[in-house]
Amino acid sequence: MRSRLEKPPVAQLAHVELLTPKLEETLWFFKEILGLTETERKGQSVYLRAYEDFYHHSLKVTEASHAGLGHIAWRTSSPEALEESAISLEEAGVGQGWIEGDRGHGPAYQFLSPDGHQFELLWDVDYYKAPSEEKSLLKNRPQRRPLRGVPTRRLDHVNIMASDVEPNQNFLQNELGFNLRELKLGEGKTQIGAWLSVSNLVHEIAMVRDATGQKGRLHHVAFWYGYPQHLFDIADLCADYGIEIEMGPGKHGTTQAYFLYIYEPGGNRIELFGDSGYLIFDPDWETVVWDVSNKSDLEKSSIWFGPRLPESFYNYGTPSVQPVKQTIE
Amino acid sequence: MRSRLEKPPVAQLAHVELLTPKLEETLWFFKEILGLTETERKGQSVYLRAYEDFYHHSLKVTEASHAGLGHIAWRTSSPEALEESAISLEEAGVGQGWIEGDRGHGPAYQFLSPDGHQFELLWDVDYYKAPSEEKSLLKNRPQRRPLRGVPTRRLDHVNIMASDVEPNQNFLQNELGFNLRELKLGEGKTQIGAWLSVSNLVHEIAMVRDATGQKGRLHHVAFWYGYPQHLFDIADLCADYGIEIEMGPGKHGTTQAYFLYIYEPGGNRIELFGDSGYLIFDPDWETVVWDVSNKSDLEKSSIWFGPRLPESFYNYGTPSVQPVKQTIE
Amino acid sequence: MRSRLEKPPVAQLAHVELLTPKLEETLWFFKEILGLTETERKGQSVYLRAYEDFYHHSLKVTEASHAGLGHIAWRTSSPEALEESAISLEEAGVGQGWIEGDRGHGPAYQFLSPDGHQFELLWDVDYYKAPSEEKSLLKNRPQRRPLRGVPTRRLDHVNIMASDVEPNQNFLQNELGFNLRELKLGEGKTQIGAWLSVSNLVHEIAMVRDATGQKGRLHHVAFWYGYPQHLFDIADLCADYGIEIEMGPGKHGTTQAYFLYIYEPGGNRIELFGDSGYLIFDPDWETVVWDVSNKSDLEKSSIWFGPRLPESFYNYGTPSVQPVKQTIE
Amino acid sequence: MRSRLEKPPVAQLAHVELLTPKLEETLWFFKEILGLTETERKGQSVYLRAYEDFYHHSLKVTEASHAGLGHIAWRTSSPEALEESAISLEEAGVGQGWIEGDRGHGPAYQFLSPDGHQFELLWDVDYYKAPSEEKSLLKNRPQRRPLRGVPTRRLDHVNIMASDVEPNQNFLQNELGFNLRELKLGEGKTQIGAWLSVSNLVHEIAMVRDATGQKGRLHHVAFWYGYPQHLFDIADLCADYGIEIEMGPGKHGTTQAYFLYIYEPGGNRIELFGDSGYLIFDPDWETVVWDVSNKSDLEKSSIWFGPRLPESFYNYGTPSVQPVKQTIE
Repeated sequence: MRSRLEKPPVAQLAHVELLTPKLEETLWFFKEILGLTETERKGQSVYLRAYEDFYHHSLKVTEASHAGLGHIAWRTSSPEALEESAISLEEAGVGQGWIEGDRGHGPAYQFLSPDGHQFELLWDVDYYKAPSEEKSLLKNRPQRRPLRGVPTRRLDHVNIMASDVEPNQNFLQNELGFNLRELKLGEGKTQIGAWLSVSNLVHEIAMVRDATGQKGRLHHVAFWYGYPQHLFDIADLCADYGIEIEMGPGKHGTTQAYFLYIYEPGGNRIELFGDSGYLIFDPDWETVVWDVSNKSDLEKSSIWFGPRLPESFYNYGTPSVQPVKQTIE
Repeated sequence: MRSRLEKPPVAQLAHVELLTPKLEETLWFFKEILGLTETERKGQSVYLRAYEDFYHHSLKVTEASHAGLGHIAWRTSSPEALEESAISLEEAGVGQGWIEGDRGHGPAYQFLSPDGHQFELLWDVDYYKAPSEEKSLLKNRPQRRPLRGVPTRRLDHVNIMASDVEPNQNFLQNELGFNLRELKLGEGKTQIGAWLSVSNLVHEIAMVRDATGQKGRLHHVAFWYGYPQHLFDIADLCADYGIEIEMGPGKHGTTQAYFLYIYEPGGNRIELFGDSGYLIFDPDWETVVWDVSNKSDLEKSSIWFGPRLPESFYNYGTPSVQPVKQTIE
Repeated sequence: MRSRLEKPPVAQLAHVELLTPKLEETLWFFKEILGLTETERKGQSVYLRAYEDFYHHSLKVTEASHAGLGHIAWRTSSPEALEESAISLEEAGVGQGWIEGDRGHGPAYQFLSPDGHQFELLWDVDYYKAPSEEKSLLKNRPQRRPLRGVPTRRLDHVNIMASDVEPNQNFLQNELGFNLRELKLGEGKTQIGAWLSVSNLVHEIAMVRDATGQKGRLHHVAFWYGYPQHLFDIADLCADYGIEIEMGPGKHGTTQAYFLYIYEPGGNRIELFGDSGYLIFDPDWETVVWDVSNKSDLEKSSIWFGPRLPESFYNYGTPSVQPVKQTIE
Repeated sequence: MRSRLEKPPVAQLAHVELLTPKLEETLWFFKEILGLTETERKGQSVYLRAYEDFYHHSLKVTEASHAGLGHIAWRTSSPEALEESAISLEEAGVGQGWIEGDRGHGPAYQFLSPDGHQFELLWDVDYYKAPSEEKSLLKNRPQRRPLRGVPTRRLDHVNIMASDVEPNQNFLQNELGFNLRELKLGEGKTQIGAWLSVSNLVHEIAMVRDATGQKGRLHHVAFWYGYPQHLFDIADLCADYGIEIEMGPGKHGTTQAYFLYIYEPGGNRIELFGDSGYLIFDPDWETVVWDVSNKSDLEKSSIWFGPRLPESFYNYGTPSVQPVKQTIE
């Protein structure tokens, strides 16, 4: 049991790797529509970042036979926390060992979530140094605001699908120090959704039950605008450039976030995030529990206002499989 | 020296007490224009909260002969941290001792900043329980969104004036665990502004040099909207209802925040905050330093775009004194 | 045939009368949620206006056994145009004759649309004179911005259901001088939707085919915000105060408007309008035709982005009748 | 005297020609920052349009020795109105005669305002036909929303400086059929500002007294966003790309418009327009008069909220001359 005086081992979501069968179209989308900047290429991978991401990359896109999650990298709260966590994960039997690093960061410890998602922890990162023609006079902005698309500001969170939510949620809480901010219970009080964070955000990671029963799939990666008008702007661009919108703009009950869900050309679901939802500063936060056996919670948790959730929201993930009828909500 | 593995003793800004010579006008402003809800009265004090503030109150308004700061209350990250901090402040010779508590919270340890601002630390808080007619179906919202004015969502930060910035900044870092997020240097590298936080916000507290040389004054208290349009909305209301706007809407270079500064009828400066600026997740954040001997920093730090800062911004604080000519910027 | 040098006889939508079986709830909605101001009561009717409506009222709410449209009043472009139109409508056999006037306006000529909607034309209007405590210093604003709800700024347009769109559209063009801005064709090129205006707006009046085959029903009355954020704001209030949202926020393809559709407590559909869509200044405008036999037009005309249209959008109108299955879109 | 039944001869602002001593920088600004599309080049002139402008161009940029206005082109309400107006202007002694046309439009009748601004009237226009890769599925949008900068939607209005406001305003009313929507009176009831329109906008043309006493200068050309957030967005871009902001974002009292004033690299002042202000549908509109001898009007007319007007606003126009001290406001 971690002491209440200690920081959680994980400090932040550092980057996400997405797999895509259509590398060029996926890159076009992230660069021209979302305004990301390419920082490097290596083999079949391209490294990208949003203009307010401080490190070498927040997104790695790798060509593959199918869409899906490559890995999720977390930066620890200190180098000591990295060492300690590696030992602890090793002891827990889920560790895969150290890698030397990748473009943009140093040694990383790899491990799997109970559902099989590839995670890694790291400490050393390369900070992005903008070339002179891209430098901003705004000293807390690592790069000038791009002139392309509706530029998103930073990576926000990741949402994974889990065949069984509870063990994955416990793992994040116990091994990595996440706080359980919100929880959604289905029939028989089964956990069907969980939102966790180590920061003041309601979540850096969420997980939803995979209605298809598959393991280790990705629900979505979210990038942050912070301004709701930009959800309208990006939706307008998507409609005009043939990017499929799954749903939105609207507002979730859980997390209170303004959202827009779209599919990048490779097939991965991407969320654009119009605000920060509410922020949690309470050091003694009591998990908000939504119970879908309660009619109001059933109706308000997923959608506070805006479009109803389509079935795809429950059974489409990447890699994609044959959709299966969803019955919970 | 605090270990990097330990949480900072302070977790959040819990509430602020403002003094006003015009209690009824000040309350009208906070309730009808900013949409705060009154939760209790005691003697010459009225307790208020914004609709997404979770505790009994985030603002205490107390009638007094002049406008100004009553006190600033910080919630610690744990009960243990409260005990340890009290001992440490006692040892540092700045402690004033425990009070039993106040409406809405338990025992608090009082102390003074080097410049003489009244601070307190506390752990036990009463959570706001909305009466049934005010309850929201949104389970992470402690109260329905009010129908009055342009309702602000929560207390965000406080900005204090200091006769000398550096000792106050050091005190916040060393005694309370704040991180120095941004710093502004004037002539001769003197510190003239500092932004500090224990959260992912750029600041829960900022301090600016008091150009008048006075001690212990308040620059402003900030409430959060999160949506820039609401700055236009509240500015429109202020113009229509005779609330003086000092400057805005605009965007600061430091903190990147969308701001509007107004004076509540009692004379205290209030900031309305249209977004969250940028958020800091980097556990190894390097302080952003703006040096006003650099022309670009001089021009861009205070104002990235929007109205120039009027002289009042440098010399008006509460309690107000005769303004003195400001020379730095 | 009207000369191209002549103004259209109708200049603007002056006011709309809504019927409601729940007068007090309907008034609570318009006053506390939409921020309308009551100007007068007479018998079972209450007169209201938005804060940027210049006349005595833009909405008359009348208690009745069922929800629905009372009448739609148009102001002519001149007193001469009123006289000429009355004669012309009389000759066309659709005139019902003059009434002396009502609260807020002088003599009006009444007539029916081909589908049986009650219309009237008028010239003399009473301008709203705000009492001193409501006066704005903004000389082009007839009243201070109210402190209640998310106040809407003005009446925008009306949308009527028609058993057969074409004759109603022809009537508006030929008798009242409306321009056909956009048109939607269904199977066999039947007209299923028409948007008409005499101003630079895309429509002051629209009509959609009533999938139930009923005559003379109301689809919705629209009030204008002009700022898309206010659609999010009002949707948030509706969710928190139990006002049913039918769909939105989203953006129509036709008219390009940001919309939100809700039901006022009496059962009438109300649209809140977040911008002005696009404006038409071209004096030689060619009607934009959407043909739902074209897949792209079918998908993009009603919804450019945002929630799909629910079935209710095609068959719910007031007075409400048993919904009938809709087959066109 | 024109009959009240007749349309005004002018229907809309068709395009504006700007002169610039820095053609390439000016084009970079309009294309990369404001997202305009180049449609054609001829000699030293480049033709551009915003993505919701329906004609061949709304802006002609011509290289010249100095910044300034080339000409302002108005489209008439009919071909007959063009013929009649040409005769009438000829008779009034201000006509300069017909030109055969220019790229994008047919024969035009040229004439001078009393202050010497070059005007022209035209009827025949070429509609923009987007190449297939730029076509939108939104049938009322002549081109897909560009991916460059913060793309503005259309030309909105022009503001000219006049050595003497009254004769110019009378000319627009009497010869071209404009309505006087708002008026600003200075000392001795002299007219110092006038806002005129033939549409529902408060102005397609405004004029302000030139404090330097010069004749025929340009104050600014305005492009329309319609969404206030875009003023923040474009201000952010301007700050990041070295485009000088004169003032804003803020809200005028006259016209109620959200504004941002910047200088394009060639030196012409450009306004970006965040909303449509209020719209005028009243066919019997009484001019709103602001009298700066009244303290409230003095303070509220130019700025309802936001940054104070800098002196440059009164004495900088293009071509630029030595600024002269301004004394009225």
